[in-house]
Amino acid sequence: MSAYTAYADLYRRALLDDVIPFWERHSLDRESGGFFTCFNRDGSVYDTDKFIWLQGRQVWTFSMLYNRVEPRPAWLAIARHGADFLRAHGQAPGGDWYFSLKRAGQPLVQPYNIFSDCFAAMAFGQYALAAGDQAAAALALATYHNILRRQDNPKGPYNKAVPGTRPLKNFALPMILCNLTLELEPVLPPAEVDGAIDACVKAVMRDFLDADRNQIVENIAPDGQRVDSFEGRLLNPGHAIEAMWFIMDIGQRRGDQRLIDQAVAVTLSTLEHSWDNEHGGMFYFLDRLGYPPQQLEWDQKLWWVHMETLVALALGYALTRQPACWEWYERVHAYTWDHFPDPAYGEWYGYLNRRGEVLLPLKGGKWKGCFHVPRGLYRCWKIFESLAAAQAQPEG
Amino acid sequence: MSAYTAYADLYRRALLDDVIPFWERHSLDRESGGFFTCFNRDGSVYDTDKFIWLQGRQVWTFSMLYNRVEPRPAWLAIARHGADFLRAHGQAPGGDWYFSLKRAGQPLVQPYNIFSDCFAAMAFGQYALAAGDQAAAALALATYHNILRRQDNPKGPYNKAVPGTRPLKNFALPMILCNLTLELEPVLPPAEVDGAIDACVKAVMRDFLDADRNQIVENIAPDGQRVDSFEGRLLNPGHAIEAMWFIMDIGQRRGDQRLIDQAVAVTLSTLEHSWDNEHGGMFYFLDRLGYPPQQLEWDQKLWWVHMETLVALALGYALTRQPACWEWYERVHAYTWDHFPDPAYGEWYGYLNRRGEVLLPLKGGKWKGCFHVPRGLYRCWKIFESLAAAQAQPEG
Repeated sequence: MSAYTAYADLYRRALLDDVIPFWERHSLDRESGGFFTCFNRDGSVYDTDKFIWLQGRQVWTFSMLYNRVEPRPAWLAIARHGADFLRAHGQAPGGDWYFSLKRAGQPLVQPYNIFSDCFAAMAFGQYALAAGDQAAAALALATYHNILRRQDNPKGPYNKAVPGTRPLKNFALPMILCNLTLELEPVLPPAEVDGAIDACVKAVMRDFLDADRNQIVENIAPDGQRVDSFEGRLLNPGHAIEAMWFIMDIGQRRGDQRLIDQAVAVTLSTLEHSWDNEHGGMFYFLDRLGYPPQQLEWDQKLWWVHMETLVALALGYALTRQPACWEWYERVHAYTWDHFPDPAYGEWYGYLNRRGEVLLPLKGGKWKGCFHVPRGLYRCWKIFESLAAAQAQPEG
Repeated sequence: MSAYTAYADLYRRALLDDVIPFWERHSLDRESGGFFTCFNRDGSVYDTDKFIWLQGRQVWTFSMLYNRVEPRPAWLAIARHGADFLRAHGQAPGGDWYFSLKRAGQPLVQPYNIFSDCFAAMAFGQYALAAGDQAAAALALATYHNILRRQDNPKGPYNKAVPGTRPLKNFALPMILCNLTLELEPVLPPAEVDGAIDACVKAVMRDFLDADRNQIVENIAPDGQRVDSFEGRLLNPGHAIEAMWFIMDIGQRRGDQRLIDQAVAVTLSTLEHSWDNEHGGMFYFLDRLGYPPQQLEWDQKLWWVHMETLVALALGYALTRQPACWEWYERVHAYTWDHFPDPAYGEWYGYLNRRGEVLLPLKGGKWKGCFHVPRGLYRCWKIFESLAAAQAQPEG
């Protein structure tokens, strides 16, 4: 068995025999609908609030598995369980998505966070395909258009910046739109797709990319200039690298090898800059001028950062065969698989301290749901499967 | 020399020979007015934004030193330097205080945070006494009344909670008002003072105190019930203990030994619960049911938590002579003085990881200014001075 096949096998088994069963077993709220996401190490529930990010992401995950792995009725039923809850309770009058709800669906936190809308759109787009549900497709589309309408002031009335003093554009929304636009391609009017992707690629690879350093900055001035402030100095390496595999997906779709090569170069330089040479793993936040970041959690090792980096490196390797991708892949793989999975109770830890010790023994919380781990496991499984298949064929 | 005298000496020297000179040397922005607060380890400035919390707190500190230690003209000039900047730029139309300004005073972040107003009121109250400035006294009073007017919805339009679903009262404002009311006594109409203090003491010692556990909870329902949610489970031990010395001050002012004893009991039980038996030091956040807190920085060791605990223990010991206060004092003293001061460059580190290693090498930042360290050093100096004086007198 080749290394590629062994990796494909590892990822497939982790996805189908460990992670997905964990969520099937623990997350369904059969009383009130929707999903629990706050789990102790053993899967017991410690909080019952419903966070729209995580409700949407789990609907997406089970719909995606149904669409891409196999059409298991149980997966579709779980997706529907979440979609029904979101439809019944998730939107404020006007169509913006709340940030969180109480267990039974009463709205708790206002729609100040546009990523709730992004993950709701992603959920209903994928669910529409799985369920053949036209109303879900329409809801995904309406939500997507509402996001585009709100994109210049995503926080709306909850924006605390005094207008005009230091206007900033944030990386997260254009980054997510790269992925969301591809995700929603089946439900979007075809004329919209290319223009939207062009805008995302320009934002990510021209506006937010500091080409001199091959570094993505989180916040820039509207004219693209760097800003010397806490926000303007912030680097979020996991974010940058996750965006790079979104860009590789776009590059692959468009047959644009230059774009792929550039995304791989940014991935590698981000890794070089953010790898912790003392304890291993990637830092969560850095200041691009080397000053103390505002985020006290800056040196922690987070599950999603490492999972998204594995996807970027595996995909970058598959698309370019650069030895540096493979070397980094092996290094990040060893760290990730040594530190995050919990063989005793299943699923992955989310939050480690700088030394790689468990900082919070949770399996799910306010921000960790059924998303980065299964999505990354699925992507890596499929990437290694295709690498193995290519290897099995005679060269040239 | 008795232990009390030695401690009094240690605190006086740290205040007058190290900490205050650090701020005198590095913090004055002679070009644009106000204070720099973001310092690297060596005192060099890494960010020039002006945070109203920290501008106000430094005006308070230098005014307090002038009023209580000695009337050095240089201290009054520094207080005036900050007060003039605050008066010129700090308030939004309507009188609420901004959260932050750019270096030259342009408003950056809206008045979403009522503690900006609290520290502005504290600043101008103390400055009014130092400068004999009636306009400053009037500004302190107007700001105080504005805080009381806003106290039921301190975040105003920036409050993201959907009204009615899970109303919560937060501990921070009543806690600060305990201290602020005593601070402003010289400028407040006498009729107001007692009623305001009664309300604060009731809030802190009845509403937010879980008497069964001698534990202060950060957020409660309007009727005083405990709430089982992330916010409702949150404990902030440093906050609780800082509030306890505010309460001891009130107890001393009122000659209420029962109130003092109760505050000491809460201090000790909070310490028992939040002390890190593995690495020493006090945790920053805990969940009262033992679940994973939402705050990723939960296990870090912060300067202000330890400084405020030293004040509470020294004062609690001076007022009750309980051996447990002294034992805890010695333990927290050893940890604090071993870990926070930086003999090489002066002042104190602010943020240590769980093991007590420096997490951020800053001496000042967005939240650490010229306040907790000098205020705590001053209070401990004076408490040990009075303990030494009492010891020097023959008993009985």
